[in-house]
Amino acid sequence: MQQIIPQATINRLPLYYRTLKQVAQSGKNIISSNELGALLDMTPEQIRKDLVFFGQFGLKGLGYQIDELAAHIEKILGLQHRWRLAIIGVNDLGVALASYENFTELGFKIAALFDINPKNVGKEINNMRVYNFDKITSIAPRKLIDIGVITTPADSAQLVANKLIDAGIKGIWNFAPVKLEVPMDISLVEEDLTFGLSTLSYRLAQRTN
Amino acid sequence: MQQIIPQATINRLPLYYRTLKQVAQSGKNIISSNELGALLDMTPEQIRKDLVFFGQFGLKGLGYQIDELAAHIEKILGLQHRWRLAIIGVNDLGVALASYENFTELGFKIAALFDINPKNVGKEINNMRVYNFDKITSIAPRKLIDIGVITTPADSAQLVANKLIDAGIKGIWNFAPVKLEVPMDISLVEEDLTFGLSTLSYRLAQRTN
Repeated sequence: MQQIIPQATINRLPLYYRTLKQVAQSGKNIISSNELGALLDMTPEQIRKDLVFFGQFGLKGLGYQIDELAAHIEKILGLQHRWRLAIIGVNDLGVALASYENFTELGFKIAALFDINPKNVGKEINNMRVYNFDKITSIAPRKLIDIGVITTPADSAQLVANKLIDAGIKGIWNFAPVKLEVPMDISLVEEDLTFGLSTLSYRLAQRTN
Repeated sequence: MQQIIPQATINRLPLYYRTLKQVAQSGKNIISSNELGALLDMTPEQIRKDLVFFGQFGLKGLGYQIDELAAHIEKILGLQHRWRLAIIGVNDLGVALASYENFTELGFKIAALFDINPKNVGKEINNMRVYNFDKITSIAPRKLIDIGVITTPADSAQLVANKLIDAGIKGIWNFAPVKLEVPMDISLVEEDLTFGLSTLSYRLAQRTN
C-alpha cells in the first residue's frame, strides 16, 4: 500500500468501521453508500470517494459487502494488531482515557497505568494497578506495550517521551500541551483538545458577527 | 468574510495564535514564516498558504507583525467573545476538561458544571459548584452560557442536547460517543477521541506490515 490516503479519510475510517459493525449485528450483509450516508449524515459521493482507496468492495448497484469492508478497514487501520496502551499520568484526563469505552470497542487494550506521584502509585483504577513510571523500562516489555499515552503536565512530557522510547515503545499519543521531539522511527500523534472548541468558537462567531 | 476557509487551516489557527502570543511575550514584534515554521515544525510555504486567508499581514521580506496577526486570528476564531462554557456530566472526562489549562489560555471560561447524579450535585470542583441539570433553563441565562459541553454517557446525550437548546444555548461540543440531531441554527462539534488513536494505529501498522 504505497498510495497516500488523505488524513481526513483516515479520520473517517473509525466512523465507517463502527457503523459497519453495528449494522452487521442487525443481520444485514450488504449496505449501499446511500444507506451508509444516511446513517453518518454524509453524502453517498463522499463515502464512495473515501472507500475507493480501499479497493473494489462495491457490488455495482447493490452496495458494499459489510463484513468484507469492515475487515478491510480494520486491516488498514491496523486494528487487528490489538495495540496495547500505557497511560502515563493518572490525573482526571488519564483516568477518563483509561475508562473511555470506544477504545476497547475498536480493539485497543489499556494494559498499564503509570505515575510518579507516590500518592497514585499502587492505586487500583478500573482493575489496573498504577505502576511507578521509574520502572517503565522493565514493565513495558513485560506488558507488551505498543503505545504510550502522555497525560502529564507540559513540563514533564518530553522526559516521559524519552523514557518511553528508551523502553522500546514505538507509538506516542501526546495530550500534554507541548510539541515533542521524537526520532523518525517513532509514530507520534499530538492531541489538542482546543481544536474542537476553536472550531465551535469560529462557527458561533460566523453567526453572530 | 464569505470566503470558505479549509477546516485544516481553522484547526491550525489556535496553534498559530498560541505561538504568536508566546513570542510576543519575549518582546519580539515581527516574525517571519521561516521562524514561525521552525517553532511549529511546519514549512514556511504552508504557513503563508494558511495565513493568506486572513489578508495581508506579511511585510514583504520581513515577516508578520505579531500583535496584528494575533489580534486578527483572535477575531477570526471568535475568541474575543470570551465564550462561557457549561460542562454537563461531572465524571473523569468532565473534570479533566474543567481543569484543562489551554481553554483558559485561549479565553474560554468554564462558567458552570452540571450533573443529574445527587452524589455530584452540590460538590465544589475547581471552585465551581456542580448544579442540578434539571435547573439548566434558569441557570444558563443567569450564567450567560454560550456553549454546552456534553460529557454524559451516550444514551443521555441527545436529551441533554435538547435541554441545552431549550435553555437558549447556541453551541454544543459533544464528547458522548453518539451522533446528535440539532436544529440548523445550533453549532455542533462532535469530538471523538478515537480519531487520534486510529491515526496512530494506522501509522504503526504502515511501519510493521
